[in-house]
Amino acid sequence: MTAVEKLRNIEKINSSKLCIGLDPQLEKIPFHLNNQVNGIYDFNRSIIDATSDLVSSYKINFAFYEQYGPLGIDILQKTLEYIPNSIFTIADAKRGDIGNSSKAYANSIFEFYNFDSITVSPYMGFESLEPFIDYSDKLTFILTLTSNSGANDFQKLLIDDKPLYIKVIERFAGENYENNIGFVVGATHPNDISNIRAIIPNNYLLIPGIGTQGGNIEQVFKNNNNGGAIINISRDIIYASQDENFSEKIREKATLYQQMLNISF
Amino acid sequence: MTAVEKLRNIEKINSSKLCIGLDPQLEKIPFHLNNQVNGIYDFNRSIIDATSDLVSSYKINFAFYEQYGPLGIDILQKTLEYIPNSIFTIADAKRGDIGNSSKAYANSIFEFYNFDSITVSPYMGFESLEPFIDYSDKLTFILTLTSNSGANDFQKLLIDDKPLYIKVIERFAGENYENNIGFVVGATHPNDISNIRAIIPNNYLLIPGIGTQGGNIEQVFKNNNNGGAIINISRDIIYASQDENFSEKIREKATLYQQMLNISF
Repeated sequence: MTAVEKLRNIEKINSSKLCIGLDPQLEKIPFHLNNQVNGIYDFNRSIIDATSDLVSSYKINFAFYEQYGPLGIDILQKTLEYIPNSIFTIADAKRGDIGNSSKAYANSIFEFYNFDSITVSPYMGFESLEPFIDYSDKLTFILTLTSNSGANDFQKLLIDDKPLYIKVIERFAGENYENNIGFVVGATHPNDISNIRAIIPNNYLLIPGIGTQGGNIEQVFKNNNNGGAIINISRDIIYASQDENFSEKIREKATLYQQMLNISF
Repeated sequence: MTAVEKLRNIEKINSSKLCIGLDPQLEKIPFHLNNQVNGIYDFNRSIIDATSDLVSSYKINFAFYEQYGPLGIDILQKTLEYIPNSIFTIADAKRGDIGNSSKAYANSIFEFYNFDSITVSPYMGFESLEPFIDYSDKLTFILTLTSNSGANDFQKLLIDDKPLYIKVIERFAGENYENNIGFVVGATHPNDISNIRAIIPNNYLLIPGIGTQGGNIEQVFKNNNNGGAIINISRDIIYASQDENFSEKIREKATLYQQMLNISF
């Protein structure tokens, strides 16, 4: 089964387009768990236990694990192993390098850890990302139009009347890549999503920026034109409470988002 | 002492602009060390022992460690600790994410590991890299014009008659950033280096692409106009031999490059 098939299956089983981002910061996790780095593993397990019937996917942002050194990486690996096999997994690592280095990164993500997908940065060109794309049974999400304010610096600059992010999509578009390339598009740019869907009607979009970052779900869904989508929420769900009953609060928030995403379809 | 001061000191002490890239791949390291991942640590120590009086810096490419999971990260950390304190260190990690994630990556590289510098990707804009740049005593190298063929895909696209990579430099240029921002420019584009030096005469350049990738040292130095430069060689030095006497061969190659770089000044 390819990564995309796995994703479509779990979307049906859990009636969900919701992805929860596992982005743990020790100072924000529940008080009774935050006195040592290992508490992050207990925190992640509780999130997964409380939400695994509500999501299509979990996204693991490497930054939040790497800040704790080898111990953090160990927790990342154990967290990944704790996620039920049926649920789609995203290595939110934003990697990208020259060919032989990207090959090593692809080894890490797809062979050593066995994630279903990864986020990568396109700045170094198509060739730099081929080692990821060559895994035709995995899904490689290209950073395209990101949810942060810095997206205006380069991504929206015009080249022959087209913004750079459209040039990026055009370079990675194509029938051969519909099932193994996806694009990261922030919900904070709902009006651009129609332009994007005109070029790549069939590729998956990974859409962050709803929740804490303020993107509008309704506008996003209207312009997405029923295309494949993974809607990521991180902070607004996982930091629902720092009290002992945090996992109930997380489940409440996750249920709310799962339902909201279904209404919008 | 800031990172740039440390770099200038060691350049004088060792009469060197040479950086050796520690990019270990198990199948390429000496035969007597390549039967287990831990052999990489012995390999790295031997390289450092054989060359630490010949280099200004060591560059650790995270890809080659991450492919071995938590054990690889452990070796990365031990390798970094083994590097003499006087030598400048580069985390070649090509990170870059939205603000709070970049903050966590900066924590990882500058606080947890205490590298002197990092390579980062500019695609998500200035704001995405501020958490790195805010460390005014460290050096943040922005990917600019990379040594691979994929550099033509986006970096050389014209925006108002200027290539994207020049727009990137202009966004990160400025007197305030001369000592904590550097730029990665591949030696495979020697003719572009004059244009770059016209905009940022005083920032450091990190220049890969000489050696295996075929860049021309003489042309690079001519166009660099005596600007600060770290010349990275990886494969052509560290894989000089797979035999038991590999560290002698590595020292020979490193000496050759150190001298070649000094002739060109």
